Amino acid sequence: MPDDTSMDLLHRMRHSCAHVMAAAVHALWPSARFGVGPAIANGFFYDIALDHELKLEDLPRIEEKMREIKKARLPFERIELPIDDAIDFMAKHAQPFKVELLNLLKTQGSTAVARETGDEDAVDASASGVASVSFYKLGQFVDLCRGPHVARSDEIGVFKLRTIAGAYWRGDAKNPQLQRLYGLCFADQKDLEHAEWQLEQAALRDHRKLGKELHLFTFSPDVGAGLPLWLPRGMAIRDELERLAVQEERKDGYRRVATPHITKEALYFRSGHLPYYADDMYAPIDIEGEKFRLRPMNCPHHHQIYLSGLWSYRDLPLRLSEYGQVYRYEPSGALSGLMRVRGFCQNDAHIYVRHDQAKAEFIRVMQLHARYYEMFDIQDYWMRLSLPDLKKLDKYVDDPEGWVKAMEILREAMVESGYRFVEVEGEAAFYGPKVDFMIKSVIGTEYAISTNQLDFLAAKRFGLRYIAEDGSEQPAYVIHRAPLGSHERFVAFLIEHYGGAFPTWLAPVQVRLIPIADRHVDYAEKVRQRLFEADIETGTGGLRAELDASAERMQKKIRNAQNDKVPYMLVMGDKEAESGTVAVRLRSGENLGPISVDALLARLAQEVRTRRDLPATT
Amino acid sequence: MPDDTSMDLLHRMRHSCAHVMAAAVHALWPSARFGVGPAIANGFFYDIALDHELKLEDLPRIEEKMREIKKARLPFERIELPIDDAIDFMAKHAQPFKVELLNLLKTQGSTAVARETGDEDAVDASASGVASVSFYKLGQFVDLCRGPHVARSDEIGVFKLRTIAGAYWRGDAKNPQLQRLYGLCFADQKDLEHAEWQLEQAALRDHRKLGKELHLFTFSPDVGAGLPLWLPRGMAIRDELERLAVQEERKDGYRRVATPHITKEALYFRSGHLPYYADDMYAPIDIEGEKFRLRPMNCPHHHQIYLSGLWSYRDLPLRLSEYGQVYRYEPSGALSGLMRVRGFCQNDAHIYVRHDQAKAEFIRVMQLHARYYEMFDIQDYWMRLSLPDLKKLDKYVDDPEGWVKAMEILREAMVESGYRFVEVEGEAAFYGPKVDFMIKSVIGTEYAISTNQLDFLAAKRFGLRYIAEDGSEQPAYVIHRAPLGSHERFVAFLIEHYGGAFPTWLAPVQVRLIPIADRHVDYAEKVRQRLFEADIETGTGGLRAELDASAERMQKKIRNAQNDKVPYMLVMGDKEAESGTVAVRLRSGENLGPISVDALLARLAQEVRTRRDLPATT
Repeated sequence: MPDDTSMDLLHRMRHSCAHVMAAAVHALWPSARFGVGPAIANGFFYDIALDHELKLEDLPRIEEKMREIKKARLPFERIELPIDDAIDFMAKHAQPFKVELLNLLKTQGSTAVARETGDEDAVDASASGVASVSFYKLGQFVDLCRGPHVARSDEIGVFKLRTIAGAYWRGDAKNPQLQRLYGLCFADQKDLEHAEWQLEQAALRDHRKLGKELHLFTFSPDVGAGLPLWLPRGMAIRDELERLAVQEERKDGYRRVATPHITKEALYFRSGHLPYYADDMYAPIDIEGEKFRLRPMNCPHHHQIYLSGLWSYRDLPLRLSEYGQVYRYEPSGALSGLMRVRGFCQNDAHIYVRHDQAKAEFIRVMQLHARYYEMFDIQDYWMRLSLPDLKKLDKYVDDPEGWVKAMEILREAMVESGYRFVEVEGEAAFYGPKVDFMIKSVIGTEYAISTNQLDFLAAKRFGLRYIAEDGSEQPAYVIHRAPLGSHERFVAFLIEHYGGAFPTWLAPVQVRLIPIADRHVDYAEKVRQRLFEADIETGTGGLRAELDASAERMQKKIRNAQNDKVPYMLVMGDKEAESGTVAVRLRSGENLGPISVDALLARLAQEVRTRRDLPATT
Repeated sequence: MPDDTSMDLLHRMRHSCAHVMAAAVHALWPSARFGVGPAIANGFFYDIALDHELKLEDLPRIEEKMREIKKARLPFERIELPIDDAIDFMAKHAQPFKVELLNLLKTQGSTAVARETGDEDAVDASASGVASVSFYKLGQFVDLCRGPHVARSDEIGVFKLRTIAGAYWRGDAKNPQLQRLYGLCFADQKDLEHAEWQLEQAALRDHRKLGKELHLFTFSPDVGAGLPLWLPRGMAIRDELERLAVQEERKDGYRRVATPHITKEALYFRSGHLPYYADDMYAPIDIEGEKFRLRPMNCPHHHQIYLSGLWSYRDLPLRLSEYGQVYRYEPSGALSGLMRVRGFCQNDAHIYVRHDQAKAEFIRVMQLHARYYEMFDIQDYWMRLSLPDLKKLDKYVDDPEGWVKAMEILREAMVESGYRFVEVEGEAAFYGPKVDFMIKSVIGTEYAISTNQLDFLAAKRFGLRYIAEDGSEQPAYVIHRAPLGSHERFVAFLIEHYGGAFPTWLAPVQVRLIPIADRHVDYAEKVRQRLFEADIETGTGGLRAELDASAERMQKKIRNAQNDKVPYMLVMGDKEAESGTVAVRLRSGENLGPISVDALLARLAQEVRTRRDLPATT
């Protein structure tokens, strides 16, 4: 969980470090023209136009110059200039991008600059409107900037330049391409080294790379960008996750449903998603003069199921779950592997509760989250409660009291649950407060994996009621929840989290059988058949064992299994065939030695049933 | 399987019976004006405009008159009249609908009449163009008709009038509504009685009626017609069917995939479905200037998965399966329960085979069908091989040789399989011969449940190739198959087949626990908990047991369970609570007597595992 004070300091250090780098580049190449240079998650970048094409070999030179500036303990001095003087100043110093920003500021204001450049710190005009702007001077180098900075250049912490990329000025391919220099910046060396390790790991564990290598999913330009096709090995993971959800959600009283992926668009006007949510939806399809839409969410469909019955106070909570496929618009430029897609399958459910049940049910939902996350060895997770600007609440919702009441219930539930949470003023859904579950992978990448809402508005819009004990009709709250997010995002997370080496129960291939020579293939096939028929329930109907009967040498077969990250390799030669055993080699490199097929099956059964890998020696 | 000669005779009897009924109605109400009166599956109907509103009480009177005509042994006499004389004749006899048909015939020909009325026998102009038309005279009653008929009225077999319905003239709600009289007609009394029983059963077992009563599925006008929403109890059946498919198809080497429901429409131009299949598809959706379509079939998506890999002769057959949701256009007027829908989920797979593997693989597919059908106690099933007009083959396909070769492979496979099949000149798919599996429910209704194709064209259109043993690239055949059809159609079948009384493994609620009085609820809840936690794998994660803790009396609770067609009712009172037993009552009315919960669990486990109900005494 972030800590606000330390984040503020880090942000200032990183932003200041960007200035130090710009000053260094300017010292080395005085004709450099600068774009924007914001602080980012683990450091900063700066977009620079340079006649010299930067190479990785240049980075040490720049770092060297930066260290000189750091050592010089130069102060960051704030200067304020009237806007027209500022434009003159930047024009005189041959900084056309800065001139462009200042003109944009002058005509359209600072919000336009932030939007166009993605850099909130680029300019500051709040102090005195657009009449004047602030600059920061660092030695001879003067940069347009709203600040704040650290006091002196020796306070920027430890840094390391990372890489160079191309970036179009103002994000538009019609503009000139600048060179973007990325740097890491931290308060101490340990954190910097951890970030380097993390970046290295993230590259090794990149889900797009591993997804391809392990044959988990693919994309087809003929089907369309952002529409994943799940290959058999990836589907095995999906099937295991869905079976897990069926089993765990059954314990909590969920009941599965299945609903179509299209609906009359009138349903979204009723729900209030249209017209506001139209940008996230695909264009309507006309069927016999009526407009239908691909669904961007499952809730209105589930509400229709609720409405198909009559419910009494004793019937609630009613928990309707569905692994429901939805389609949301993303611009093609924003698509990325399984993380940003146009169609995804949510681990969804909607829980219809009485008001007096809402808190307890929400705690139960949080406990389900925790149960799942512990199962996947996710050590670090917390909740984020998104709040609207409470002072302005009555201006943008019809029922501010209903909103505040729902928020209080969620907050109480979070406090009572004992799980960690933070409150942020952010994007609350229009129909109620939102709680996001944030999880960290084993290498520390943060994922917003699951969104929960307590919806007080659906009851009004859809007439979701129940008959109370006194015979009156009462509105039901709706809890929206999806603890495993979508198959797409959660599998992307799992690939990184496990580095593709999934625990046995999830592994697309659980066992690879490796006969040493051709004469051992028959025996291997017999063993495979026993594994195939073993009475071990999985999401795919049984164990996933493959026989490698190729002409490769044993060492190559083991290497291939290792590359496929198969947890169990069974090597079989004369000795094993004679004694009816298998020599078990684990993915970790450990050997279980020759054991009987029965002993192997007992071990596999336990790992699959408990969804937890055993140590090599038990 | 139908027998052509006896079908021809029956058709003539039924069509003649329609005339006899019309003559009887005319005798009773001389102002009757007649529309069309075709023979149908189990008899005939006639659409009649009558000032008198027919009631069920009128049917015996009409039947009485029909019996008189039958006894009179009147001959059916054919008369031919020039078209204009025919129009005059019908106008003089105050038959405006017949006049309209004759005018239609005169201006647009007999095909237009058949299309407009749905009655192929309404008129005949083939003998002499539209210059003259044929009539049949039966006593004083003359009707426009192409025949043929039986020779005399005593040859019409046994009949019974069934019901009266409303029907718009020419199927158009803007036209006058006629009264449609339905009658049964068979060669002998036994067949007639069987048909009556079958109709009665079909009404009792109607999947729309039972689907509602048993809470299996629903439709919502706000979502759209023809788009079923599966309720939790119906979803349990879907989940069981899907688990069955996962298990059985695993044995045959299938590998599951998941693909999106939309695609660029260019894919369907490539496959050849567009532009020809456009009427069955929904309108395109524009995304960033490109057209996307809801998919009407899964094949092109699976081909893209095939194309994502490189396959050698050793890798084939590659069997990709998916419970894949597709969307096909149906006019709203044609929609009917789960049988005719706009979106459905197919038990689909595509098998990529070498040409030398096609026959054996197709036999394997047929055996899978048989295995499934035997599992569902489907006694009567056969295949229908649809052939194109072989004489005209080269006129409408590019590769008649490829077509004939594929057909020969299928025919050989069917002969070798030993399963029953018929060949019909019918609608073959453009990409290859089609084999439909036809099944009959226990009450004799026929369903076309599954379509199989051997596709030689996809390899060309999509470049589906493999590397042969000699290193050359060879085209792969694609087998399309879906033995369980779609969830929608197959569940509609199963509802009728079992009359809603599903075998234990499929039953949405398997056990209903019935405490006799309030003081037995705690014990019942303990038993429920044991059933819930029992280690019995099902498609929904475990046994489906419900406790009826309502305030109703025991007899009412049993009646409710009986109405819900729950296979096991556990009645629990003082005696059971003391001895730790349950008094088991089966849906059949049989009692297993008081038995231990362990004994009950053993029985349930066996029924679920073998997917077969046990007799009451084992």
